[in-house]
Amino acid sequence: MKKFFCGVDLGGTTLKIGIVDGNGNIMVKIKEGTLPHKGPDYILNRIKDNISLLLKKSSLNEKNLSGIGIAVPGFIDEKRGRILSLTNLPYWEGVPLGKLMREGFSTPIKIINDATAAAYGEYLYGSGRGTNNFIYMTISTGIGGGIIIEGKPYFGTSHGAGEIGHMVIDINGERCNCGNYGCFEVMASGTAMAKFAQKAIEAGENSTIKILAAANIIKAEHVFSAAKLGDKLAKDIVDKEAFYLGIGISNIINIFNPEKITLGGGISNQWNTLHPKIMKIINKRAIKENTQICEIVKTELKDDAGIIGAAALCFIPNNK
Amino acid sequence: MKKFFCGVDLGGTTLKIGIVDGNGNIMVKIKEGTLPHKGPDYILNRIKDNISLLLKKSSLNEKNLSGIGIAVPGFIDEKRGRILSLTNLPYWEGVPLGKLMREGFSTPIKIINDATAAAYGEYLYGSGRGTNNFIYMTISTGIGGGIIIEGKPYFGTSHGAGEIGHMVIDINGERCNCGNYGCFEVMASGTAMAKFAQKAIEAGENSTIKILAAANIIKAEHVFSAAKLGDKLAKDIVDKEAFYLGIGISNIINIFNPEKITLGGGISNQWNTLHPKIMKIINKRAIKENTQICEIVKTELKDDAGIIGAAALCFIPNNK
Repeated sequence: MKKFFCGVDLGGTTLKIGIVDGNGNIMVKIKEGTLPHKGPDYILNRIKDNISLLLKKSSLNEKNLSGIGIAVPGFIDEKRGRILSLTNLPYWEGVPLGKLMREGFSTPIKIINDATAAAYGEYLYGSGRGTNNFIYMTISTGIGGGIIIEGKPYFGTSHGAGEIGHMVIDINGERCNCGNYGCFEVMASGTAMAKFAQKAIEAGENSTIKILAAANIIKAEHVFSAAKLGDKLAKDIVDKEAFYLGIGISNIINIFNPEKITLGGGISNQWNTLHPKIMKIINKRAIKENTQICEIVKTELKDDAGIIGAAALCFIPNNK
Repeated sequence: MKKFFCGVDLGGTTLKIGIVDGNGNIMVKIKEGTLPHKGPDYILNRIKDNISLLLKKSSLNEKNLSGIGIAVPGFIDEKRGRILSLTNLPYWEGVPLGKLMREGFSTPIKIINDATAAAYGEYLYGSGRGTNNFIYMTISTGIGGGIIIEGKPYFGTSHGAGEIGHMVIDINGERCNCGNYGCFEVMASGTAMAKFAQKAIEAGENSTIKILAAANIIKAEHVFSAAKLGDKLAKDIVDKEAFYLGIGISNIINIFNPEKITLGGGISNQWNTLHPKIMKIINKRAIKENTQICEIVKTELKDDAGIIGAAALCFIPNNK
């Protein structure tokens, strides 16, 4: 009997679920708003209902399912099968996610940090294929990292490894959501770009960004679009973004000496603009011996990396 | 027949060699100045002569030796068995260290980065015993790091992993020897402490540091001694050192989620002064979930960590 797996990518904004075959192909998937304020019970029921729906759609039943992998944006107490805390998802502290899922399904349930899941997906079936030591970085609202060491996902001691968004790169920098100051995330995320623009415009700077955003909240996309139209402020912010990304990636090259680093998340859609600028910083800043053997590429699996990686986690006999 | 191993710790200042048994005990060792300016041939001959001498001293011969591990402060091209570059040891670029050692000995030769060797030594026989994910940081003239992941030393793709000294923590910081700016090393090494003192004194500040150093170059030790005598400048520099160390260690906690971090190197001799100050920063700055399960301790093996770790590398069937 052919084996199938389910991958759940639970995000603060979007909930993605897919049925994945043993070769990492998504057979069928759904994507919908998470509605995080409705809390764990509501979200869990929707996850269960959606899995049943997807199985039906693909003419499978639970017996065909060899495991369900759930990627979550936060910290997991693996021993007790509990959520410690999730980013942008309130009321999840202490929720025994594994146990609650097992009430609906008899197939093995695995829980994994979302960036680690995406890293594992990219490593097995995307841009990381063929490497041994591989880092996945997601740059969007926040910054997260997933680590593959010698072909295996590295979870850390309590599923907290890869928090590269909370690596201080500016000791005098601004306060981050995590309580620290000058974190990579507070300087180089999409949110940071939007904030830089917002501040400058509030201070009276004239910029196409304002016209593009119109009555909406300024987003990183507006900044990239305005930069393409030649807007001075937007171009400066894009250059600053590339600079900060270059510094953060150089740190990761120096610390991990990986064969490849893949960038994912919303910011990676601006690859052609950012990549040459980032490489200039890395070639100047990172250790030469490590840079020479490290490729910086963009995600291949894009939005599907988390689903595929979470499902693929069930291929591994135990969570190690 | 009982097995013995040889560990060589080749440093820019000191050359340490020991004969180690299968339980990580050093039977006999030597420690002498490296004399780096004399170049690879001279140093290699001394290493070989010293190994022969140590074998004789311990009534062993080469047949008793199951391997020689050599820890070097730099980058290794493992495939070609060549040195890429060493810190503070000129003329070593491209030297086929493995091949040259094999000309003197028929036992297997392994080459390893020095901080990784020290990490492995501490992990097997020192402060890291019983952990799975363990980081060793050496804080002295420079700052280096060694990484143990799931019980195995992590070398990186080209033996360049663990260069945590060259993780930028101050994006606006001073230039580092590596060419980058604001590296952890340029701010928190012993050399950095001495430089801060030197600068302040040159700028006219009155300080006991100057009296303690007398006609000699100011060193980190002078700063710690002056701080103990209540000197204001020295106390400020010690506080700054603890602050920078706290930031750098917090980054490592966030990135690796390790069970334990061991500090070694000269600065770790000031443990009682630094440890409480460092912990205050970490408790404020690092991610709570990761900090809770991570102990920060000082080296147990001290100066011997490199010898023991390099020798222990020969216990592993291949370099992985």
